Amino acid sequence: MLRVGYSANISAELLSEFPPGIELLRLPRDLDHDVEIEVWIPDPYPTKNTQIFPHLRGVKLVLSLMAGTEWIPAAVGPHVTICNARGAHNISTAEWTLSAILAMLKHFPLFLDVQRSGEWKRRFEASAEYAQITGDSRVHYPPVMLEELTGKTVLLVGYGSIGKEIERMLQPFHVELIRIARTAREDPKVHSVAELDALLSKAQVIVLILPSSAETRWLIDARQFSVMQQGALLVNAARGPIVNTHALVEALQSRRIRAALDVTDPEPLPVGHPLWTCPNLLITPHVGGSSPEFARRSLKIAADELRRYMAGEPLRNVVQAAV
Amino acid sequence: MLRVGYSANISAELLSEFPPGIELLRLPRDLDHDVEIEVWIPDPYPTKNTQIFPHLRGVKLVLSLMAGTEWIPAAVGPHVTICNARGAHNISTAEWTLSAILAMLKHFPLFLDVQRSGEWKRRFEASAEYAQITGDSRVHYPPVMLEELTGKTVLLVGYGSIGKEIERMLQPFHVELIRIARTAREDPKVHSVAELDALLSKAQVIVLILPSSAETRWLIDARQFSVMQQGALLVNAARGPIVNTHALVEALQSRRIRAALDVTDPEPLPVGHPLWTCPNLLITPHVGGSSPEFARRSLKIAADELRRYMAGEPLRNVVQAAV
Repeated sequence: MLRVGYSANISAELLSEFPPGIELLRLPRDLDHDVEIEVWIPDPYPTKNTQIFPHLRGVKLVLSLMAGTEWIPAAVGPHVTICNARGAHNISTAEWTLSAILAMLKHFPLFLDVQRSGEWKRRFEASAEYAQITGDSRVHYPPVMLEELTGKTVLLVGYGSIGKEIERMLQPFHVELIRIARTAREDPKVHSVAELDALLSKAQVIVLILPSSAETRWLIDARQFSVMQQGALLVNAARGPIVNTHALVEALQSRRIRAALDVTDPEPLPVGHPLWTCPNLLITPHVGGSSPEFARRSLKIAADELRRYMAGEPLRNVVQAAV
Repeated sequence: MLRVGYSANISAELLSEFPPGIELLRLPRDLDHDVEIEVWIPDPYPTKNTQIFPHLRGVKLVLSLMAGTEWIPAAVGPHVTICNARGAHNISTAEWTLSAILAMLKHFPLFLDVQRSGEWKRRFEASAEYAQITGDSRVHYPPVMLEELTGKTVLLVGYGSIGKEIERMLQPFHVELIRIARTAREDPKVHSVAELDALLSKAQVIVLILPSSAETRWLIDARQFSVMQQGALLVNAARGPIVNTHALVEALQSRRIRAALDVTDPEPLPVGHPLWTCPNLLITPHVGGSSPEFARRSLKIAADELRRYMAGEPLRNVVQAAV
């Protein structure tokens, strides 16, 4: 029997798709004795594992239910294989991205303020907001109160599985899509990240959906904000440290750009942080991957990895190979 | 020369695509003398025409820049042909509809309140909101803070040109789409409005995008709310009177359903109206058709009708034929 330890917070009924030949060990958050297991399925919240992992013995494989696994190597060391749940967040994160783009182009934050104030006629503030942030000084009649996604140029920074899903959801809007990834490739055309600064000025919408790493830290900094179009919308569906928060606050406060952030740096964003009150900004508190379907999807991916592991087949989503 | 009168609020540069052979007459809002014109292009805002139309003589054709033309027959009488700008609102209204659906499923109104309060940890209120409104009493871990559009059943009540555009934008989400229109037809399958009550219970999202008329008044009333699923999302992108506002307020206040409204009855919604403070509701103040592209698109449609009129060809968007 293969001994698999899992966080006690995970509903046992979701483990029903696991292959036969497994002995499941439920690991409570306050585990107080050593446990011998070969496979570990940690709690999705890193901090809930801190009292567990010092007690684990014999772990050879960690199956994370999340896409991000930054904290795991330090916890288990280099002699353990680590897999993530690549794909489990694709639909939810891509949907969040599309929702955030549309909410900002439709000025929903302003209209929610109008709704809270209960004054219908405040709707004309949207025209002033539109003119100010886009820099469109033409006289429009009837006044412009919403923008359109259709026909805009979208710069997708990151072209992994979530990036491709975002592209798929953008399809009905006939946007001009420019793709950037670590390495350039053709068919479809993907530019190298070295071309970022040159491409930023072409887009009205810029979506960050790339991994966090030493190389991508502060990829979007004061220099990048300075070359963006007036009123460009920066959407961060990736990780906070990819953007220099200080430069972001400055770009927002000077009303140069707008932003929708599911992630921030620092995170959680502390009470009183200037980002909370910046104009032309939508913040959701790192919920983009959340979905009623998430646990089921990620445990299905874990079940598939377990089946492969027991059959001696190559695993699919290895992010650290055991040395 | 064909004499065409147009609202002075319309930017003259947008008339540049009009065919040759036309004499353009700019009609100020406070017109104080009679004017002989054959074609009239009214102001998009009905109330701005009240001092103009008593002075018009010889009008044979009215080219409205809007989709709704309810007020025009009473102004010009039955011996005049009236065309609307069918199609000019398609993209903007369909985009608003998709934006509103996604904003509600992603609980953006709550997250904007969290953002205004500046307290990151309030994000867990989304889980309570999700459980309450959907009636999903299962234990979810990690907690559910967003829902997905993907895989939901969407009931489209109305299947004209905007309805078809909404269907196109829903395509990447693999929704189950149920279509309803005045008359049933096949390929694609469209149900008759007589089947509305039976079909309402199948959908998690119900979109109203049908014309306002005596027959569609209060199409959605207490009986219809009573058969909707717990937490169903009603999206009104059509006209306020299609929904009985009293029944809507009751369905929202009892937390049976949620709604996104671009239109209300009465409209504008007066200060202090109970709708302003209903839970699980997004109101935008009749802006769904707004777009920086709108004036250009609707005048292009008018230019095409003018060309047809001058060539003696059938007009495309006749909503009243002259008797």
